[in-house]
Amino acid sequence: MKFVLTIGNTETAKIDGISAAGANPDLMVHTPSADAEILTYGEPVETPVVPVSPTGCPTPAVISRAVRECLEFETVVVDAGAASQTSAPSVEMPGPAGNDVREEVAVPEAEAKFESARAYGQALPDDEIVVAETIPGGTTTALGVLTALGERTDVSSSLPENPLELKRDVVSEALDASGLEPGDAAGDPLEAVAAAGDPVLTTVAGLTVGALESGTEVTLGGGTQMSAAAALVRHYGVTESFSQFTTSFIAADESSDVQELAADLDLDLTATDPEFAETDHPAMDAYVRGEAKEGVGMGGALGLAAESDVEMAAVRERVVAVYDRLLADVPEEHPAAEHAGTAAE
Amino acid sequence: MKFVLTIGNTETAKIDGISAAGANPDLMVHTPSADAEILTYGEPVETPVVPVSPTGCPTPAVISRAVRECLEFETVVVDAGAASQTSAPSVEMPGPAGNDVREEVAVPEAEAKFESARAYGQALPDDEIVVAETIPGGTTTALGVLTALGERTDVSSSLPENPLELKRDVVSEALDASGLEPGDAAGDPLEAVAAAGDPVLTTVAGLTVGALESGTEVTLGGGTQMSAAAALVRHYGVTESFSQFTTSFIAADESSDVQELAADLDLDLTATDPEFAETDHPAMDAYVRGEAKEGVGMGGALGLAAESDVEMAAVRERVVAVYDRLLADVPEEHPAAEHAGTAAE
Repeated sequence: MKFVLTIGNTETAKIDGISAAGANPDLMVHTPSADAEILTYGEPVETPVVPVSPTGCPTPAVISRAVRECLEFETVVVDAGAASQTSAPSVEMPGPAGNDVREEVAVPEAEAKFESARAYGQALPDDEIVVAETIPGGTTTALGVLTALGERTDVSSSLPENPLELKRDVVSEALDASGLEPGDAAGDPLEAVAAAGDPVLTTVAGLTVGALESGTEVTLGGGTQMSAAAALVRHYGVTESFSQFTTSFIAADESSDVQELAADLDLDLTATDPEFAETDHPAMDAYVRGEAKEGVGMGGALGLAAESDVEMAAVRERVVAVYDRLLADVPEEHPAAEHAGTAAE
Repeated sequence: MKFVLTIGNTETAKIDGISAAGANPDLMVHTPSADAEILTYGEPVETPVVPVSPTGCPTPAVISRAVRECLEFETVVVDAGAASQTSAPSVEMPGPAGNDVREEVAVPEAEAKFESARAYGQALPDDEIVVAETIPGGTTTALGVLTALGERTDVSSSLPENPLELKRDVVSEALDASGLEPGDAAGDPLEAVAAAGDPVLTTVAGLTVGALESGTEVTLGGGTQMSAAAALVRHYGVTESFSQFTTSFIAADESSDVQELAADLDLDLTATDPEFAETDHPAMDAYVRGEAKEGVGMGGALGLAAESDVEMAAVRERVVAVYDRLLADVPEEHPAAEHAGTAAE
């Protein structure tokens, strides 16, 4: 089993109010690179930032890394188009980061990324992969893809109050810019992703198609972004079964259609509850309050933990350890610093 | 502990008779990428070649991978300048592959590679790293660097008969092209490596300097190429102690000065004997005959095995398993194919 984290950026994340995957838009560009380093090394290595939301919720990479430390699974980072270089070892897809979806082309070289990811997915010797993502603004591009394909469009959010109206407005502009009506790209996933998606969605879809073609079991670890990736795979014509692991926080989010989408797309959906309310700690409290919910394969990692003989209490203990390690060296001016004290108490 | 494999190419390898790190010069360019995939995945994934010497000796990546499967240590690939893209996740150093050392500049952007590797070495959170290399033609560039620095110059070879005279002629031309006499670059390692080295040497030196600066223990896993990297580190002015792990095949090579160089450079040298003569198998026979000897951190991996509670017999069993897996799918026209049958018998 290999845990494949796909990282990338889209300029869409810079639209005010779209994403909480970073303390502010300047730091947000580094979130995927930092997440990759946290998953790989247990802390950011050369990316000078610990991703936190504007309210201080630490990146879900903390949770995925904690599970990795408990289960010792192998990870690979696939760079679908990150705007900031990562020091995590990564497999490079061709082409740049994604544009603002309101431009005519949201994903330059979408087909090259898809085919490169597909070849890599075919070539991986593993029996099973879990595919994860980190891309700020990714639920908006997921909405874009689902809309272009004519699928259900209620996506989740890393923010406690889902700005769905804003996302719909952005997606409407995105489709206009590409001359598409909702549903026009049905059966043409590369058109949908190029017009209104992001580099991570096309890469996750390519990885999934390639892996399934070579007989590898695939689990998409994530929320409605993974629903959109799965929709791309189905619209490509793939009928093989594959699965989705997400968190109980996504499953409980009434603003999102993750369960209905899984049913529509014939995905076997599992939502895992890490019982964060059992532990009073700033690494976990924000999730209980409804923030973040998913990302960096958190639901995938928790699903693997639930399948293993590791207790969820042990995972939570490890989450605290990873969080404290991450925030121990945060400089005082860092947005996470005010929470560092809480962690040490 | 992390096992860091540094990969790269130099045009120097294309000089007839210099290297056995590939069946022929066209295939040799893929050797570092394939080695990285074998170490990471257990087999080449997208690089379409299993590296073998012209006589059929399989790449030492087989040995390092086998030890990794026994000990389960973590690996990272650092791409110092590979000419062929690898599908192994890797950390990219700036700049291209190396030129033929007989050109004026052997390593474009040598300082950028060194400083980037140094920053990465400083940032790695590990207590200990073992640094390995794969670059065809690397013993010639090692000779170039040792000569430019004024150190001992008897380097080893992957060929059974070491073409030392040819290497000396090439290095003599290399220094001429850069306007240097032997020893002229003493105290200026970046001049030495830029004039007569390769991308891997400057990167290994940078990694070592950076790691030592941040208090990480460093072991160089390799033969006289690692002697040359260590010389670069010492000529940079670093006095901290570090170690070298190599194979008994290098230690037994009377044409090489690995032991004298270790003494000169104040390196703690350990040579590990995998007792390949105990097992009659084509994956190991060539080493017993004096071919290959080292590479892809073979000596480093074997040293880790010797320090662990894993028996060397178990390592040899795993070598057979890795070799058989590698050669199971080799197409008939591949230079390794004639040996595939032997392995299956």
